[in-house]
Amino acid sequence: MNRVTFKTPLAVAVAAAGLALAGTANAQSTDLEQRLAELEARIVAAEQRADAAEQRAELAEAQAEERLSSEEVEERLAKVERQASGDEGFSFGAYARSGLLIGEDGKSAPGGPGVTPAGPLGGNVGRLGNEPDTYAEAKLNYRMRFDNGAKADYRMMVADGVTTSNDWTADETNLNVRNVYAEFSDLPSFTGAFEDASIWAGKRFDRDNFDIHWMDTDFVFLAGTGAGIYDVQLADNWKSNFSLYGRSYSEFPTEESDITGDTDNLTLTANNYFGNWQWMVSGLSAADNEERDIGAGQDAADSGFHTMLAYHGDSFFGLGEGNFKAAVMHGQGLGAEVKVIGGNGSLTDEATATRVGLYGTTYLAPSWRVAPAILAETSEDRLVEGDRFDWATLNVRLANELTENFEMQYEGTYQYMDLDQGAGGNSAKGDYTKFTIAPTFKPEVGGFWKRPEIRLFASWSDWDDELNDYSADDAFGSEGFTGSQWTFGVQTEIWF
Amino acid sequence: MNRVTFKTPLAVAVAAAGLALAGTANAQSTDLEQRLAELEARIVAAEQRADAAEQRAELAEAQAEERLSSEEVEERLAKVERQASGDEGFSFGAYARSGLLIGEDGKSAPGGPGVTPAGPLGGNVGRLGNEPDTYAEAKLNYRMRFDNGAKADYRMMVADGVTTSNDWTADETNLNVRNVYAEFSDLPSFTGAFEDASIWAGKRFDRDNFDIHWMDTDFVFLAGTGAGIYDVQLADNWKSNFSLYGRSYSEFPTEESDITGDTDNLTLTANNYFGNWQWMVSGLSAADNEERDIGAGQDAADSGFHTMLAYHGDSFFGLGEGNFKAAVMHGQGLGAEVKVIGGNGSLTDEATATRVGLYGTTYLAPSWRVAPAILAETSEDRLVEGDRFDWATLNVRLANELTENFEMQYEGTYQYMDLDQGAGGNSAKGDYTKFTIAPTFKPEVGGFWKRPEIRLFASWSDWDDELNDYSADDAFGSEGFTGSQWTFGVQTEIWF
Amino acid sequence: MNRVTFKTPLAVAVAAAGLALAGTANAQSTDLEQRLAELEARIVAAEQRADAAEQRAELAEAQAEERLSSEEVEERLAKVERQASGDEGFSFGAYARSGLLIGEDGKSAPGGPGVTPAGPLGGNVGRLGNEPDTYAEAKLNYRMRFDNGAKADYRMMVADGVTTSNDWTADETNLNVRNVYAEFSDLPSFTGAFEDASIWAGKRFDRDNFDIHWMDTDFVFLAGTGAGIYDVQLADNWKSNFSLYGRSYSEFPTEESDITGDTDNLTLTANNYFGNWQWMVSGLSAADNEERDIGAGQDAADSGFHTMLAYHGDSFFGLGEGNFKAAVMHGQGLGAEVKVIGGNGSLTDEATATRVGLYGTTYLAPSWRVAPAILAETSEDRLVEGDRFDWATLNVRLANELTENFEMQYEGTYQYMDLDQGAGGNSAKGDYTKFTIAPTFKPEVGGFWKRPEIRLFASWSDWDDELNDYSADDAFGSEGFTGSQWTFGVQTEIWF
Repeated sequence: MNRVTFKTPLAVAVAAAGLALAGTANAQSTDLEQRLAELEARIVAAEQRADAAEQRAELAEAQAEERLSSEEVEERLAKVERQASGDEGFSFGAYARSGLLIGEDGKSAPGGPGVTPAGPLGGNVGRLGNEPDTYAEAKLNYRMRFDNGAKADYRMMVADGVTTSNDWTADETNLNVRNVYAEFSDLPSFTGAFEDASIWAGKRFDRDNFDIHWMDTDFVFLAGTGAGIYDVQLADNWKSNFSLYGRSYSEFPTEESDITGDTDNLTLTANNYFGNWQWMVSGLSAADNEERDIGAGQDAADSGFHTMLAYHGDSFFGLGEGNFKAAVMHGQGLGAEVKVIGGNGSLTDEATATRVGLYGTTYLAPSWRVAPAILAETSEDRLVEGDRFDWATLNVRLANELTENFEMQYEGTYQYMDLDQGAGGNSAKGDYTKFTIAPTFKPEVGGFWKRPEIRLFASWSDWDDELNDYSADDAFGSEGFTGSQWTFGVQTEIWF
Repeated sequence: MNRVTFKTPLAVAVAAAGLALAGTANAQSTDLEQRLAELEARIVAAEQRADAAEQRAELAEAQAEERLSSEEVEERLAKVERQASGDEGFSFGAYARSGLLIGEDGKSAPGGPGVTPAGPLGGNVGRLGNEPDTYAEAKLNYRMRFDNGAKADYRMMVADGVTTSNDWTADETNLNVRNVYAEFSDLPSFTGAFEDASIWAGKRFDRDNFDIHWMDTDFVFLAGTGAGIYDVQLADNWKSNFSLYGRSYSEFPTEESDITGDTDNLTLTANNYFGNWQWMVSGLSAADNEERDIGAGQDAADSGFHTMLAYHGDSFFGLGEGNFKAAVMHGQGLGAEVKVIGGNGSLTDEATATRVGLYGTTYLAPSWRVAPAILAETSEDRLVEGDRFDWATLNVRLANELTENFEMQYEGTYQYMDLDQGAGGNSAKGDYTKFTIAPTFKPEVGGFWKRPEIRLFASWSDWDDELNDYSADDAFGSEGFTGSQWTFGVQTEIWF
Repeated sequence: MNRVTFKTPLAVAVAAAGLALAGTANAQSTDLEQRLAELEARIVAAEQRADAAEQRAELAEAQAEERLSSEEVEERLAKVERQASGDEGFSFGAYARSGLLIGEDGKSAPGGPGVTPAGPLGGNVGRLGNEPDTYAEAKLNYRMRFDNGAKADYRMMVADGVTTSNDWTADETNLNVRNVYAEFSDLPSFTGAFEDASIWAGKRFDRDNFDIHWMDTDFVFLAGTGAGIYDVQLADNWKSNFSLYGRSYSEFPTEESDITGDTDNLTLTANNYFGNWQWMVSGLSAADNEERDIGAGQDAADSGFHTMLAYHGDSFFGLGEGNFKAAVMHGQGLGAEVKVIGGNGSLTDEATATRVGLYGTTYLAPSWRVAPAILAETSEDRLVEGDRFDWATLNVRLANELTENFEMQYEGTYQYMDLDQGAGGNSAKGDYTKFTIAPTFKPEVGGFWKRPEIRLFASWSDWDDELNDYSADDAFGSEGFTGSQWTFGVQTEIWF
């Protein structure tokens, strides 16, 4: 730190000058002499000060020159900032949950949002205090920018889900690669309706899937291996996405005994957006799937149709701040698995299903959040001619933010189901209820979407006895799991 | 932003001084008086300006001081730039391909560059429009720099390859760890011939492997677990690499029924570089492998020899800009698997194989690229005394760059094979032809090595009927796959 | 580069002024005139210099302004530095070892620190020149900072261990997810004893585990799925950690034939720190584990107790610079597996085990490091009433740093074991000895904890013949592995 300091301050010089001007008129010569002397003194001082100012200016110049130019620093900083943020190069994303779900007997309890007999049909219930697994997705992303302005985005996702609590899970592991795709955008050759379009190919979850988080279910889950184009601007208020997804149907029984069959379902989808409205249409085809043996007298579907009309709301059903989503889906044949489109090759060619889903979130009061959700479906001739499955779930999540880091969460869930397998097996009718209280820690409270969380919980669940006998494949009716259950646990959930 | 502005500009002061000097001679005293007054005025102005300059210099100093010194910024920026680029710390690399390969029947078609009966022998054909899988390698790299100048590079690679199109592949997954090794370079203790040498140990693909990309085959693929040293400077124009690689031969049948054997193949390799020439020599040993039961009358090899002479050309065969590579390989005993050195423990002790490979790339015209390639092998006494396998593949990839983001790719591939298993099984002779057209999107066109790509494709392939009966283990002759095939699909490919 | 330079230097002006003052007294008027003229000249010069200084100050200001403010640069640099270092956002960590372990017969040799009959009981021996596997842990970490000062740390670890040397290990892979958890710290709502506390939930290795590196064994290894709180300040010199860990006991035989059982072990632990002392207490419970069939006449434990008293020393046993750790552990019932707490569900309800462990590290001379270690255990009624297992291992690692990049490492290990399975099987008594010499390369020598290393090694091992017949499940006594063995190899080891 160099700072030039002035030994002869200005005030002194000015004072001296003032005194000098106070001489008498006759002593003019002497007066002039004095005034000159004073001026000389002042000019010396002024010269010294000019020296000093010069010196300081020089120093300031030198210091300024030592600094990198802002242009260079800006450019280099901006690049490393893009890299550090993942806007360019590698970035890491994750979803994970892990914890314990323990029953009254001190042992792991069955659970999961698909725990009821309606679960295999997509009839999820609330997930809070109801999850027995460690599930983790690791997302390895890499974004490229090209000199011509084009961008490419590579995504790879590996995921694992196990229910064991052990740390070495080589025997139980389900580690697998769920996403491997590349997406290109900002292509200079794309103009007109395609100007903002991006194209992709590979294995992926479709960009336009959306879910009811509290029941851990997508409205629609379009995924598989294929290709597509997003954001084609067909008109001012009409954007469309088109995709072709393949899914594999492997080693299914055929009517020729001992010969298994393999085929692929191909789903061609158009997703149309008009303002807040989304209209999705899909056609499905699985060559030779009708050769599948799904039981005497039924023909497996080898094609299907699926459509969804959805509304993405910017408020809490128009009643207050928040958001909501509502959708109705209908499918036929292979499209009658209305969530995982093309995900079930055992559907009959007469299968039909209609589902409605909706949820909303809002603040009831400054520290009280609420999120109600409904999901319901009716399907017929699904797995066997004459079967009929009706179920409806009502779920409410409530949270009370108590400190910056703590909130009480509550969840009530109710499911009604009337499951008639026809010639395919048992029938059962009844309902399921769960109530959960979960003291929850968060680094920062403030909304339904803020994670991570660490939660303790106690859940009470009950269901009609009739449901225990419906299927040997589900948890209901298994040892010690016949209704009027308490479960306890602890869990973390994170995403970023 | 503080800027000092001057209320009394210099021009005014100077003008005042000029007027003052215009007084008369006789009024000398008055004149002097005036001049004094003027001087006084000017000195006041000069003082004010000195004040101001001082103030501004001070401000400039203060501003400059507020800036970080370029030395510090440079150092800190350079470090984060090294980290962001992966030159220091973590970096992510990938190879991936994923897509659909659909036959005329609308179902997944068999495929892959090793689809022909010669495939298991390494007789690959062109890969464009011929790949049915999702294959991805994730490379997790970590580079360390030490105060003494030494560097260490850690590499871990996980890879997965599946043919299912589904997004959840826990049942089919092949996820596994292919590389885990550390390599040290710039070791201050290394001098003389070792000055530029680096050493490594662990599981890896050898650094010196190189491939014919369009047929998805390495010229040689040396890999396994071991250790080595690279870049030993034996003479001015002679660099050598030495390595020892182990590979495991597990649970093979022995002549004692019900007792399986296990052993390891150890390959000791010297790779010598003289200018553009590479001469590779390998000795192989697998203790007790002769106890392996490979059929009556044959002895499995327990040792082997392998050599390759290669030329890495800087032009298109001397005919124009581009590059080319040419190599001839010969192996005996365990070295008779001339690509995957040590990769096949079932070779007889009399086995011999000779392979030639070459490819080149160049631009035929500003927007037309071409890459011809040839791969051919003859081997005898390979799996059974008296067997003989001859095959040769000719492949040509052509690309026409049409816009910044789009090119048409074409591939023609032809393979002749004469496969005589002797006492080991069927024999067959014939040829295979494939022609593919692939409209291809790229963020930036401009060469055979630029990725990512998204391609649509249609391939027509045909082969001699005789090949359908050669083996039950290959795709030829399986249901609906007997020649004169169309396949269609879409795929992405990326590496970085 | 703009620099204002002065054409009329100060010296000239001063000289002129000096001459002017040398006039005669009588010529006062002339003298005054002259002095005025000189003053005028000087004021002009001063004005010019003020101009110049002003100009330079302006320039310096302008240059300074062009630079980014240090506040902004500092803030942006600090953020990318945090991101690049992993202090915020993603970071990658690893542990890995990979290499070859070859016997005198040229084939892979059995090995591992648990190679002796005491190994399954936790009786490890020295690991140097004794490891046959490729084991790698990839740690994907993500740290978040919140506006309120809170931090969250997400950890995911995948690991794989195989003994094959091949590069494609899809058939042998053990790739699995060992850690998935989130930990929160600096929570503003936490005050008082909890001010510095952090909380976590998920699947993890406990933070407080510590090991004897040279024998590849933790003193205690607490791990599983659960939740806990660290660093509760109970008193000035008393910090405690509390945790609940679950571990799964799956598909064990029960006394009802054909019905397997499943339960969970729950371990509640308090870890107390007083200065260098650590006192750990754990209670274990596994509901219904007593239904496990562990052989006629024994009851499996359904609960247990475990405690450890440990000292973490800052010197080499008070004898010199370095460090040491010493601990004694005792367990009963399910706690009788004293290392992997809750890791063994087959223990009898009468099982007891007591273990001691200690190690230290120091420099004997500037380039000679030594690390002695002892681990010993006695257990009774472990797997069968009346069994008794005593074993003790003494291990010494010695290293001689010869250059910046090279050291010779030596390891001697001795294990005595007296294994009496009682009614459960064979008994054997004897000892095992191994001596290893390992020329070792490092980017930078300088301590037992510096990695990576690449080592060559030769080991000689021997043991009592009686140990060969103890168990068919261990390597002792298998073909060609009966004592007086040489093994050779090469290996890398790295962590960061």
